[in-house]
Amino acid sequence: MNPTAASDALEWSIDGCTIGRAMEVLGEKWTLVVLREVVNGIRRFDDMRVRTGVPRQVLSNRLAMLVDQGVLKRVPYRDPGARERHEYRLTPKGLDLYPVLITLLEWGNKYLADPAGPPLRFTHRDCGAEVHAEIHCADGHLLADRREVVPRPGPGARRR
Amino acid sequence: MNPTAASDALEWSIDGCTIGRAMEVLGEKWTLVVLREVVNGIRRFDDMRVRTGVPRQVLSNRLAMLVDQGVLKRVPYRDPGARERHEYRLTPKGLDLYPVLITLLEWGNKYLADPAGPPLRFTHRDCGAEVHAEIHCADGHLLADRREVVPRPGPGARRR
Repeated sequence: MNPTAASDALEWSIDGCTIGRAMEVLGEKWTLVVLREVVNGIRRFDDMRVRTGVPRQVLSNRLAMLVDQGVLKRVPYRDPGARERHEYRLTPKGLDLYPVLITLLEWGNKYLADPAGPPLRFTHRDCGAEVHAEIHCADGHLLADRREVVPRPGPGARRR
Repeated sequence: MNPTAASDALEWSIDGCTIGRAMEVLGEKWTLVVLREVVNGIRRFDDMRVRTGVPRQVLSNRLAMLVDQGVLKRVPYRDPGARERHEYRLTPKGLDLYPVLITLLEWGNKYLADPAGPPLRFTHRDCGAEVHAEIHCADGHLLADRREVVPRPGPGARRR
């Protein structure tokens, strides 16, 4: 964010960018909507289809991709008198997406909600208060201003 | 996340979901890559094009969409002897996307980086330590376990 930052960044390759890779998993239309359903406790194919209106084949593809990527796992269940079916639950890798969903919801609720307000909030189970993401550093400081965040080459950075 | 959660959620409409709306702005292929460039201090069209390899027309569309959405603003500049051109900077709405980028990078770095490690880290300007997102509630509690996060209908929620 300073005058030399642009020229610095231009020297580094963007190969292996993990934001790009994360978006390859999450960026496909409907993928985050499917994750939102699972987070909301909607775990079964037919419930998701009815609630979201995602076309059957698209929903099926997104769920298969998320299982393939290790974000969701299929867990068998059997309703009385029915054949065995599967529901979808978050894996640890999927649970680690909570901060992404929370920051997306926070931004969406601030800028994109209807005048009546947002339809969904994330709250703290123990006290009921709304949750939000805070940016902290490993040394324990709270970063109140986005301008305190500086991108730096990581261990896997390569010169162009 | 409890047995009644699914049936509760099924009673609510998903109209106006702000995660869906946020992904309409951010989910298009390359959009977050363009934002990552701006965050890295790459503000000029030609620099972005050379560094990312995004096709000229796609890059042009993504930048126009982000200006249209109020995430980026165009700022004129003039190199000596050249005609006036524009560079792209984050608006306050765009700066508020930092937490989304940080949580995406955190997840990508944990699960999708090459063995050599991630190519990019976000650090604290003042102390150099790596930054991360923490989930807190409005009452000041730190939520260490994702299972403490509970979705609830917001003020704009409608029954189906």
